Amino acid sequence: MSVCEGKTFKFSNASISEWASVVGKVEGEGPHGDEFDEILQDNKGDMDTWEQAEAQLQKKALQHAMDKAKLCPEKMDLIFAGDLLNQCTGSSYGLKDFYIPFLGVYGACSTFAECLLLAACMVNAGYVDNCSAVTSSHFSSAERQFRFPLNYGGVRTPTSQWTATAAGAAILNSALKPPYIRAGTVGKIQDMGITDLNNMGAAMAGAAYDTISRHFKHTGTHPESYDVIVTGDLGQVGSDMLYELFQRDGVSIKERHQDCGLLIYDRERQDVHAGGSGCGCSASMMCAHFLGRVKSGELKRILYVATGALMSPTMVQQGGSIPGIAHAVEISHT
Amino acid sequence: MSVCEGKTFKFSNASISEWASVVGKVEGEGPHGDEFDEILQDNKGDMDTWEQAEAQLQKKALQHAMDKAKLCPEKMDLIFAGDLLNQCTGSSYGLKDFYIPFLGVYGACSTFAECLLLAACMVNAGYVDNCSAVTSSHFSSAERQFRFPLNYGGVRTPTSQWTATAAGAAILNSALKPPYIRAGTVGKIQDMGITDLNNMGAAMAGAAYDTISRHFKHTGTHPESYDVIVTGDLGQVGSDMLYELFQRDGVSIKERHQDCGLLIYDRERQDVHAGGSGCGCSASMMCAHFLGRVKSGELKRILYVATGALMSPTMVQQGGSIPGIAHAVEISHT
Repeated sequence: MSVCEGKTFKFSNASISEWASVVGKVEGEGPHGDEFDEILQDNKGDMDTWEQAEAQLQKKALQHAMDKAKLCPEKMDLIFAGDLLNQCTGSSYGLKDFYIPFLGVYGACSTFAECLLLAACMVNAGYVDNCSAVTSSHFSSAERQFRFPLNYGGVRTPTSQWTATAAGAAILNSALKPPYIRAGTVGKIQDMGITDLNNMGAAMAGAAYDTISRHFKHTGTHPESYDVIVTGDLGQVGSDMLYELFQRDGVSIKERHQDCGLLIYDRERQDVHAGGSGCGCSASMMCAHFLGRVKSGELKRILYVATGALMSPTMVQQGGSIPGIAHAVEISHT
Repeated sequence: MSVCEGKTFKFSNASISEWASVVGKVEGEGPHGDEFDEILQDNKGDMDTWEQAEAQLQKKALQHAMDKAKLCPEKMDLIFAGDLLNQCTGSSYGLKDFYIPFLGVYGACSTFAECLLLAACMVNAGYVDNCSAVTSSHFSSAERQFRFPLNYGGVRTPTSQWTATAAGAAILNSALKPPYIRAGTVGKIQDMGITDLNNMGAAMAGAAYDTISRHFKHTGTHPESYDVIVTGDLGQVGSDMLYELFQRDGVSIKERHQDCGLLIYDRERQDVHAGGSGCGCSASMMCAHFLGRVKSGELKRILYVATGALMSPTMVQQGGSIPGIAHAVEISHT
């Protein structure tokens, strides 16, 4: 049977005009601590609960981005947002007070790329002028929802990743200044048969491979066409699997590859096992570290590939495996 | 403070080419039982669990729609899908075996309108040729996730709605035959301060009012411009609130209004309290009842407004209220 190829969308008219990131204490103590716009002093950030704190992360991130862009809510046309919480409440509770038209998305940790891709489609086609992409994740709200109550003190396995307490927000328009979103490839759900709740990297590597391969093919590019191929968040285990999958095709991407899950923490110094994860991980790293470098021209062209493990405790308890997905967004200085 | 107006998107080039619906036994015994493409004989539909059964609903609905459109998966370019299950597993597990590029969305019961709206944007702008919108809900999987385990036998309140066991799938392209999607208005999150898990209609009425009002304003239309204004799913309580909100503006929409939650069941004969709900409710009613009538010209122009209660048991337990959202899609014979 032949398989669906999908399309890679091309954009001539979509810029990321401003962006911002807000992170938790642990992320603020990591190697990129000085690049974030705001660092919470504790994981609750003056709220009563972790879930409310996560909602605040999104609110603050979007507010910072709007302040930088000198935009008030009535000048915004649309928000794409999502997060890991059930019913995506980080987004709905965090962003409701802006009263901006809102489209919720769910792509697990691939959410920020999904939001950027959709925002680029909408801006490039002229449906909207200013469109935002916002996502978050929170270590404490995610652990108790997906794995164990934190008080239980469960031992974490070496393959487990640390959900970043972080949010990122970007505002897109057609301002014709860098960074530009030039292309995007939507991922297909890939099920590698992984059933281990603590091995998300392995569940996502196949999806990343599929999306990156199709993006290369549709755009006539190869690893050397990009200064960096940024994944978020395969962690160490998933990154190694990705290299192996490409090696079978005789393609080496290791030299050009960086993973947000491996960048956000200092794994020697911080006890995060296989690296960071969560929608907020790559969102905050894109907004804190990468977008500014593409704007300045230090990076000419990057491929951002956010990967999501569509993991459901309910389905895993019923013996189901964990499907993965990855969406790619090509971001360029020119 | 002035408030964000948002934009109403106009489409000249987006048709709904085929559609299909699959429902459970109770829905099949309702007044529209003979209009659905397939009726499951029991709520598990040959699967082991309700969640797996819900995933099957989506799979079957999309397969029926693709069969009618004579399309194989490799001719499909994109799916927008979502559902009520945590991590939207009805969609990811149900649709993964098609290997079609997939963008997950979350809008609670507004999901089908959100999917149609985004699919129309993508087709109209020429990004894709064939794009599908798919959603589902399942009474049993939803009850245990959002309220109580079914075995507990909790008494249902009069304001509670019955989550429909149902899925709908539509395929959009630019075939230039009716029904056409002519316009769409994205909803803003509205929080009316409702904290009662069993009163979703009230939580959504304000959102429906806001979106419909803005759609009227942006398109220069009024209730009489439409043969029907179809909401999904306000139920009886929410519908009455919607009439009241419009009456304050001197606008009467009751004569033109129908609610999928009130249509799908026979409330005299079936014990469903305030009516049906769930993403699958309006999705299946659109696909079974309304789209064919717009195609034939029996209905010239309808406004489909799917409403979602962005309700999280976690947030409600923490004292939070239930925000609502509604997205509008204008569907026309010409």
